[in-house]
Amino acid sequence: MTLLVVGSVALDSVETPTARRDDVLGGSAVFFSYAASYFTDVRLVGVVGEDWPAEHTRLLQSRKIDTAGLKIVPGGKTFRWRGKYLPNMNDRETLEVHLNVFGDFDPNLPEAYRKCQFLFLANGSPVLQMRVLDQVPGAVLKVADTMDLWINVQREDLMKLLKRIDGLVMNDHEAKLLTQEENLVVAGHKVRELGPKFVIIKKGEHGAMFFSKSETYVLPAFPTPRVIDPTGAGDSFAGGMMGYLAQRGDFEPKTLKEAMAYGILVASFNVEDFSLERLKQIDRTDLDRRMAEYKTMLSF
Amino acid sequence: MTLLVVGSVALDSVETPTARRDDVLGGSAVFFSYAASYFTDVRLVGVVGEDWPAEHTRLLQSRKIDTAGLKIVPGGKTFRWRGKYLPNMNDRETLEVHLNVFGDFDPNLPEAYRKCQFLFLANGSPVLQMRVLDQVPGAVLKVADTMDLWINVQREDLMKLLKRIDGLVMNDHEAKLLTQEENLVVAGHKVRELGPKFVIIKKGEHGAMFFSKSETYVLPAFPTPRVIDPTGAGDSFAGGMMGYLAQRGDFEPKTLKEAMAYGILVASFNVEDFSLERLKQIDRTDLDRRMAEYKTMLSF
Repeated sequence: MTLLVVGSVALDSVETPTARRDDVLGGSAVFFSYAASYFTDVRLVGVVGEDWPAEHTRLLQSRKIDTAGLKIVPGGKTFRWRGKYLPNMNDRETLEVHLNVFGDFDPNLPEAYRKCQFLFLANGSPVLQMRVLDQVPGAVLKVADTMDLWINVQREDLMKLLKRIDGLVMNDHEAKLLTQEENLVVAGHKVRELGPKFVIIKKGEHGAMFFSKSETYVLPAFPTPRVIDPTGAGDSFAGGMMGYLAQRGDFEPKTLKEAMAYGILVASFNVEDFSLERLKQIDRTDLDRRMAEYKTMLSF
Repeated sequence: MTLLVVGSVALDSVETPTARRDDVLGGSAVFFSYAASYFTDVRLVGVVGEDWPAEHTRLLQSRKIDTAGLKIVPGGKTFRWRGKYLPNMNDRETLEVHLNVFGDFDPNLPEAYRKCQFLFLANGSPVLQMRVLDQVPGAVLKVADTMDLWINVQREDLMKLLKRIDGLVMNDHEAKLLTQEENLVVAGHKVRELGPKFVIIKKGEHGAMFFSKSETYVLPAFPTPRVIDPTGAGDSFAGGMMGYLAQRGDFEPKTLKEAMAYGILVASFNVEDFSLERLKQIDRTDLDRRMAEYKTMLSF
């Protein structure tokens, strides 16, 4: 099935306790589509400025990611984010955000994209996410991400969005914020009752939880001793998951669980270096090898 | 195989965001032995004061826990702890500690106990833990718990203890404190290199990690919507684990992993009410039913 992602395309500057990188390739749609590309072709919708290095587009294209939806704004500047990770490598501080051309992002999908079947709305305002939904009326699986900002400032629109999507991906803090509930099992189902058929709560180094009407489960993260940069972990998780679903062409409970596991594994590679550096070194075989280890780990 | 636990026996006062209980049955050796009693007979070594309600002893005995090693100090008062859980139910504040008779605890094991084969040293000073080790020279599996206090004030003795035990159980904060390492995968193996053949890092609601020379794995907690009081979760985890190992009579990698899972499940019941209230309602059948759900959850 065809997979479409709409989200940010960025140049990130990242500081960790031991290293830093400036202006490296980032953005939710970038991590997502690269992660999904191990499984299926991806169509990317995003916006960048004139300062966007053409090599980044070529990198994405080399993974069969369709960048026809990546708009370059003449005279504009690309979205920039600068952040710093605390020593625990889970919490981070945003030092600078320059939305630049992403501030006026109003995606108008290429005609060929409008028939996409699997759709992922990366983090963005729920108003904008709904405008994308309007353009892909035939999508059979619509999944969105969100963040604390929208829960705080566009709660009503977020509530409308939740009634129009099949799945929501969010992190543990966001689930607690949205539901005012500290127990994640309770919070997950409360979010589900707001609309989506399934909800996934990402817990960073502790894995991810899944909630549907008939299922509640948690899968741990793959334990890697090498955590260099967690940026993009959530988006590469979503990309791995949606990519696998699109490849399989269904979203039955069994397929969804396998997809969750692939998402977790792509994310576990993603954190092993800055930007896409680690993902660039691996292929599907590496993912399947780690999957075998992961399954062994969870068997007893 | 015979299982022996040495640790605290206490009267706990617990406050949570929604409820409180005063002077309820608690202590590491109590949670441990009750949890282990689903699997095997347990011998308990501890100390209480004259204020100790005889009904608590009867409760333990009703589970075939041998209390011959529970010393009642005439004129003494039982160890009391008062704590308050923060809204997240993972972090807690200790409001009061009265060691009372536990402050002079210097266990002298009954002769019949000294031939025990499986030994658990619940949290206590490493000096005291080593004195117990001296009295059980023939133990085939020696596992200890520890805490931040001993890492901070008796580090050298703790280092000696680590060279004399087979397994160490600790929580994530303690593992980071001991190794000055934030990545738990790295921290777990660093602790292992200090002596024990295996190390288990408890992560509360996020499950537990296992480290041996040849294995690294993490098992998630069982997702329960009902978390009433986490007190004793770590000790009931250890009790379930050691109880299962003692019942099986070996500690091969495969058995250890099954034991970890049983520990996680006993702990998941334990947090569903105050003190031992929830554990008193369940039997081995309930554990095995939850085990089947847990295995299904981890299969895909």
